[in-house]
Amino acid sequence: MGYVRYDLKGIKCLPETLKKLDFSSLFTREKMPFIGAFSVHIKEIKETLRRFKEIYDNMFVIGIGGSSLGIQSIYEGIYGKHKITGRKLYFLENVDPFNIHQIFQSAPWDRTVYCVISKSGSTLETVSIFNLVLYEMKRRGFTDLYKRFIFISGKNTPFYSIAKELGAPFFEIPEEIGGRFSVLTPVGLIPADFVDIDPYALVGGGMEILEEISQNKEHEAIILTCAEYESYINGRNINVMMPYSDSLRKFSEWWVQLWAESLGKDGKGQTPLPAVGTVDQHSLLQLFMDGPDDKFYQFIKVENFGSDFILPKKTQVLDFIAGKRISDIIHAEFEGTVEALRQGGRPVAVLEVSRMTPEVMGALFTLYMVKTVVMAELMGVNPYGQPGVEIGKKIAKRKLGGV
Amino acid sequence: MGYVRYDLKGIKCLPETLKKLDFSSLFTREKMPFIGAFSVHIKEIKETLRRFKEIYDNMFVIGIGGSSLGIQSIYEGIYGKHKITGRKLYFLENVDPFNIHQIFQSAPWDRTVYCVISKSGSTLETVSIFNLVLYEMKRRGFTDLYKRFIFISGKNTPFYSIAKELGAPFFEIPEEIGGRFSVLTPVGLIPADFVDIDPYALVGGGMEILEEISQNKEHEAIILTCAEYESYINGRNINVMMPYSDSLRKFSEWWVQLWAESLGKDGKGQTPLPAVGTVDQHSLLQLFMDGPDDKFYQFIKVENFGSDFILPKKTQVLDFIAGKRISDIIHAEFEGTVEALRQGGRPVAVLEVSRMTPEVMGALFTLYMVKTVVMAELMGVNPYGQPGVEIGKKIAKRKLGGV
Repeated sequence: MGYVRYDLKGIKCLPETLKKLDFSSLFTREKMPFIGAFSVHIKEIKETLRRFKEIYDNMFVIGIGGSSLGIQSIYEGIYGKHKITGRKLYFLENVDPFNIHQIFQSAPWDRTVYCVISKSGSTLETVSIFNLVLYEMKRRGFTDLYKRFIFISGKNTPFYSIAKELGAPFFEIPEEIGGRFSVLTPVGLIPADFVDIDPYALVGGGMEILEEISQNKEHEAIILTCAEYESYINGRNINVMMPYSDSLRKFSEWWVQLWAESLGKDGKGQTPLPAVGTVDQHSLLQLFMDGPDDKFYQFIKVENFGSDFILPKKTQVLDFIAGKRISDIIHAEFEGTVEALRQGGRPVAVLEVSRMTPEVMGALFTLYMVKTVVMAELMGVNPYGQPGVEIGKKIAKRKLGGV
Repeated sequence: MGYVRYDLKGIKCLPETLKKLDFSSLFTREKMPFIGAFSVHIKEIKETLRRFKEIYDNMFVIGIGGSSLGIQSIYEGIYGKHKITGRKLYFLENVDPFNIHQIFQSAPWDRTVYCVISKSGSTLETVSIFNLVLYEMKRRGFTDLYKRFIFISGKNTPFYSIAKELGAPFFEIPEEIGGRFSVLTPVGLIPADFVDIDPYALVGGGMEILEEISQNKEHEAIILTCAEYESYINGRNINVMMPYSDSLRKFSEWWVQLWAESLGKDGKGQTPLPAVGTVDQHSLLQLFMDGPDDKFYQFIKVENFGSDFILPKKTQVLDFIAGKRISDIIHAEFEGTVEALRQGGRPVAVLEVSRMTPEVMGALFTLYMVKTVVMAELMGVNPYGQPGVEIGKKIAKRKLGGV
C-alpha cells in the first residue's frame, strides 16, 4: 500500500518468533471477526444519512469508549481539531455534569440529529445521557423524535426496542465485534458519512491493507509486531505511539484502548502511552532519551498536511528558519527525535503516511487491529472481551442502589 | 487545607524512606525556586491586563510545553472544555501546519491580543509561529503592533529586545524557574487574568498548601511520595493519574510533563500515564485490573461539579438510575473503580477536591511541584534541566541548515 508504509531501520525479529505464528489461521472470521465489517451494507447507511443530511447541521454522537473513540479519530484525522465549515459532530461521552451542561447550553437543538451507540444497549454513561437528552427534547417541545434519532446497538438490546418504538433507524453491531474493533462498522461509518467522509473510502483503505498483510507473512507490520513482542518479553512493558500531527492525537487514544484492553489480561499486557510531536518533545522526550530503557517507540510521520505556510525571508530571531515551510520545521524536529533515539539504542519504528485521507484512516485502523490480534496470538491471550472491569461495574451499580 | 485532601487507605511508607528526606532543607529557594513565584508583582500584571481586557475579546497564547500546559490546565480546570461566554484563550502550540491554518482561519484577528511565551526566547516552535503571526498581522494592515503583544521570557533574550523595540509589555521568567515549574509566574497568571481567573486566588491556594506541607513532615503528600518512591524501587515503573472530571484532563497532562521531565534522568524515571474517568474505564481499566502489577495509581475526585442534572423519574432502560443525579453516576463509577483496584491489591491513592476553583488549582499545582521535588530528592536526581533533549534539537537544527 503506497500511502502507508513502515520504516523499520534496525528493527528485526527472531525467526522463532515469526514461526510461532500460524499465519494460515490468522486471517479468518474466527480470529479477526472485524473482517466481517468490510461487507456491511454501506448503501443502506448512505441512503439513511442522505435524509438526515438534508435537514440537520449537527450530530450528537452519544457513546463512550469503543463506541466513540473510533469516530473521534476519523473526525479529527480528516478535519483536524477545529473544523471550520459544514456539518459538525459533538461527542457526548463522559457523565461529567459540567461538560454535559456546556454542550447542552451551546447546542443548536433544533438543527441536531442524535446518534446513540452502545453495543450492549445498557452502558451506564450512554443510557444516562440518552435519558437526559430525551427529557430535554421533550421539555423543549420536540414531537418528531423519530426523525431525530439513529440507534446503533446489538440486536435484541433495549435500544433495539426503543428504536422500534420510536420508528427510528436501527443499525446492528454484530455480536462478535467488540467496541474497540467496531470503527469500520456503522459505529464509525454513520457519523463519518454525516460529515461527508466516504464510508466506501474508509472501508476500501482497510480492505487494501488487509489484502496486503494477509498475503505476506513477512510484511513489515508482522515483523514489527514480533519485535514488539520480543521487547515486551525482555521487560519493555511500555509501548509509545507518537504521531507528529495534532490531527492524530485521537487516533493514538483509539490505539491505546485497543492495545490496553485487548492485551491486558491474566497478569500480562503492555501499557500503551500516547504522545504527540512536537508538543511532547517538551514533555516526555527527556524521559524517553535519558530515562530507563523500558519502552518501545512507534512514530507516525505525515508527509503532506494539506496546508502549509512559508516563513518570511527575514525572521526575527533564529535566522536559519527564514524562508522555510512550517512543514519543514515539524519534519526536521521529527527526524531529530527519531535519530536521537536510534543513536541512543532505543527500539524505534516509523510509520509514514502520505496524507490524512479516509483511505489512510481506514488502513491505519485495520493495520493496528491486525497487529493487536497478532500480538495477542504471540502473548497467548484472547484479544476479545474485558473480564477485568466487571467487579468495578458491579460495585458502581450497587452504590446506585441497583443491587 | 480543607478543600484538597488525600485519602490514602492502605498506602503507607517505610520509616527509613521518610528518614532519607532532609526536611529542613527542602522548602528553600534553592531546592524549590518556584516558591519565588509567590512573590511576583501581581499588581503590575492586573494593571497591564486591565488595558487589554478593555479592548480585546481573545488572546492567542503562543508557547509550547511548560509555557502552555499550565495555563491550558487552569483554563480547562475553571471553564471546562467549552467555555460558552466571555473572553477566550486560543493556544498556538504545535508547528502542525493544518492546525495553524484552522486557527488562523477562525481567528477574529482584530479583536485579539497575542501573548508570546518562551523562557529561552528561542524555542523553535514558538519563534516560528510568532514570525508567522507577525507576518500575517502586517499583511492584514495592522500598524499598532505594540498595543497587541505581551511578551513573557527570560531577561536579555531575543524576545526582550523585540518587546523593547515594539514598546510592548514584557514580563520576566526568572532564570531559576524552569518552564514546567512556571505556572504560578506571569506565564500562567497573565493569560489567567485575561479570562478573569484571579491571580491572587491562584497564588493564594498555592501558598496555603505550601505552608501546610512545609510544617508537617508526615503530611499525606509526603507519605504518598515516599510510597510512590518505594513502589518505583520495587519495579512499578508506571504512575497513573486518573481524575474523574473532563476539566482535569489538561491538568494530568501538565503533571505528565512535570513528572517525566523532572525525574527521567540518568537511566532513572517513572513513566506518568494520564487517564480520565469514566471514559478510560472503557479503555485502560481492563489493563489496570487484570494486567501486570507495574503501576501506582492516583485518582482525583471532584465533589461538586458546579452543574448537575437529575435523571427523569422513569427512565428508558436501567431502572436503578431513575431520579439519580448525573454526579451520583460519576461518583458511583469512581468508587467502583477505586474499590475494585484496592480489592485487587493495587496501590491506590485518592485526592479529593471540593470544587474546581482558582484556589484549588493553585493548590494542585503547588502540591504536585512539591511532590516532584521530594521524589527527585529520594531518587537522587536533579529535578531541573532536561539535558536529554539536546541531541534531538541539534539534529533538527542541522536538518534546517542551522549548522
